[in-house]
Amino acid sequence: MTEFELIDRLRKWMPTNASTRVGAGDDCAVLDLGLADRWVLFKTDAVVEGIHFEPDADPFWIGHKALARCLSDVAAMGGTPGHALVTLGLPTAFDPARVEGVYAGMQRLAQRHGVAIVGGETTSNPERMLISLAVIGTAGHGRCPLRSGAQAGDALFVTGELGGSLESGRHLSFEPRLVEARWLVERFEIHSMIDLSDGLAGDLRHVLTASGVGAEIFADAVPIHPAARSQAAAEPGSRPVRSPLHQALCDGEDYELLFTLPVREEARLREAWKSSFPELRLTPIGRICPGSAVLLKDQQGTHPLTLDGYTHF
Amino acid sequence: MTEFELIDRLRKWMPTNASTRVGAGDDCAVLDLGLADRWVLFKTDAVVEGIHFEPDADPFWIGHKALARCLSDVAAMGGTPGHALVTLGLPTAFDPARVEGVYAGMQRLAQRHGVAIVGGETTSNPERMLISLAVIGTAGHGRCPLRSGAQAGDALFVTGELGGSLESGRHLSFEPRLVEARWLVERFEIHSMIDLSDGLAGDLRHVLTASGVGAEIFADAVPIHPAARSQAAAEPGSRPVRSPLHQALCDGEDYELLFTLPVREEARLREAWKSSFPELRLTPIGRICPGSAVLLKDQQGTHPLTLDGYTHF
Repeated sequence: MTEFELIDRLRKWMPTNASTRVGAGDDCAVLDLGLADRWVLFKTDAVVEGIHFEPDADPFWIGHKALARCLSDVAAMGGTPGHALVTLGLPTAFDPARVEGVYAGMQRLAQRHGVAIVGGETTSNPERMLISLAVIGTAGHGRCPLRSGAQAGDALFVTGELGGSLESGRHLSFEPRLVEARWLVERFEIHSMIDLSDGLAGDLRHVLTASGVGAEIFADAVPIHPAARSQAAAEPGSRPVRSPLHQALCDGEDYELLFTLPVREEARLREAWKSSFPELRLTPIGRICPGSAVLLKDQQGTHPLTLDGYTHF
Repeated sequence: MTEFELIDRLRKWMPTNASTRVGAGDDCAVLDLGLADRWVLFKTDAVVEGIHFEPDADPFWIGHKALARCLSDVAAMGGTPGHALVTLGLPTAFDPARVEGVYAGMQRLAQRHGVAIVGGETTSNPERMLISLAVIGTAGHGRCPLRSGAQAGDALFVTGELGGSLESGRHLSFEPRLVEARWLVERFEIHSMIDLSDGLAGDLRHVLTASGVGAEIFADAVPIHPAARSQAAAEPGSRPVRSPLHQALCDGEDYELLFTLPVREEARLREAWKSSFPELRLTPIGRICPGSAVLLKDQQGTHPLTLDGYTHF
């Protein structure tokens, strides 16, 4: 049973109420607590030693990653994070200095984005460190791009460069795209948005399934991170070669933004982006199409994109 | 290093911001998100297999406990819970039916209190199940009894009966005192409140330290749960006898309310409580005093209460 099959099975056990705008199934839950012009965003996420970080990883970057993953989900809703709580599961013999290092990483990232760390909880998790974050944020009423909003004809964009995140260490040190996402939702009619944690192929499918549409990806346009190219070159001796493109589509943990907007906005977006974020690539990689097929167009023609994204089991 | 020493050490790494009314150190964080008459409460907590529940515990009650612990903290702030997120850490080979059982327990409790479960996250935690809950609630402006509000001269009350929580299974099946706590804050000048998770002796100290006061406990008044009495009787053959009183003071996981209010309110409270909650005991167990001493008064005289509460390491 995959992570996603399990989550589907659990949904029927999740009661809702009148103030819930969006429950399970998007990057954040969206709540209407009665604020005049803001919705409240609510998100939790956990990183586990040996799964999401190696035991010898720098504690500072472990802490950074733990918080940054939640902030990246707030970014995907075009929101502003405000408050975080930290639940720490600690092995029987833990080093307090290592735990402080984790907090130092969270602190620096939190401060940079005006986020208060308002407490948390410690518990024993005897075999490995586990850090679970909960974050509250807000977003403007009607300014929350959901996974379900993609429309046939939309242009599909991605920020940054994809693939080789583990090898390059970006899975620890990435910067959540909060500023860029708010800039987008304030200036453009963003139909749908998601942050890339499971890999472009996997996360694109989440958007398409939620929206009831298909997509066409231009293989040559996918922005490949240099780490994916060098990794592909270094691999032949050890394990089956995965092409740089395959890595960019499937590696996961890129934490870039994938979003769609009407094609008529494309030119204006590319122009405005260049002057606002000259150092971050923004790439149109395809189109949203009617139906449910996901196609990859390359020089050999058009093929179904059957690659699966990275899953956490 | 104890849980509390570690938390103290971590506090300096927690940035704050203008909308934070209460950060780390109370039952919930208290946030001012701009609602006219409500504050937002924010709480996380985790239960871990082998620590907070046995591997063969009924999944329904594991789920119940995981959510009920957070709701008990919302109760201690006089609040109303609204939304919850669930982060599940699952062993490599997990039984989906067991996970659904956990959700069934959360669902029933959530529905009873109008709480929506708005999503969550699953991850691998190879050796044991871990369930981390995050809860958002609200409370009236100025109606949030904090740990720091106890005043010399206050009467000290506790709901229910204490001790033997593990042996009687109440540590799994307890009912968070949400209704009773809201009733209290709406009708009485509650100066301070906390829910009893670490044991009366330990949690009382949290209140006294935060408030800068001491207390005198009347040993004969402490309401002892029948499970603590039978446990004490059964113990002689196996391990050192702990008196029923010792268990009531120190066992922990009672999840009852401990609160203080002006002595002049005492008679009115006891009368009103009896007609509103005839089936739940409410017991005056002592007084808040100037200074910092915590004294236990019994038939032999007055002694310092040196017993420590249960800690989670």
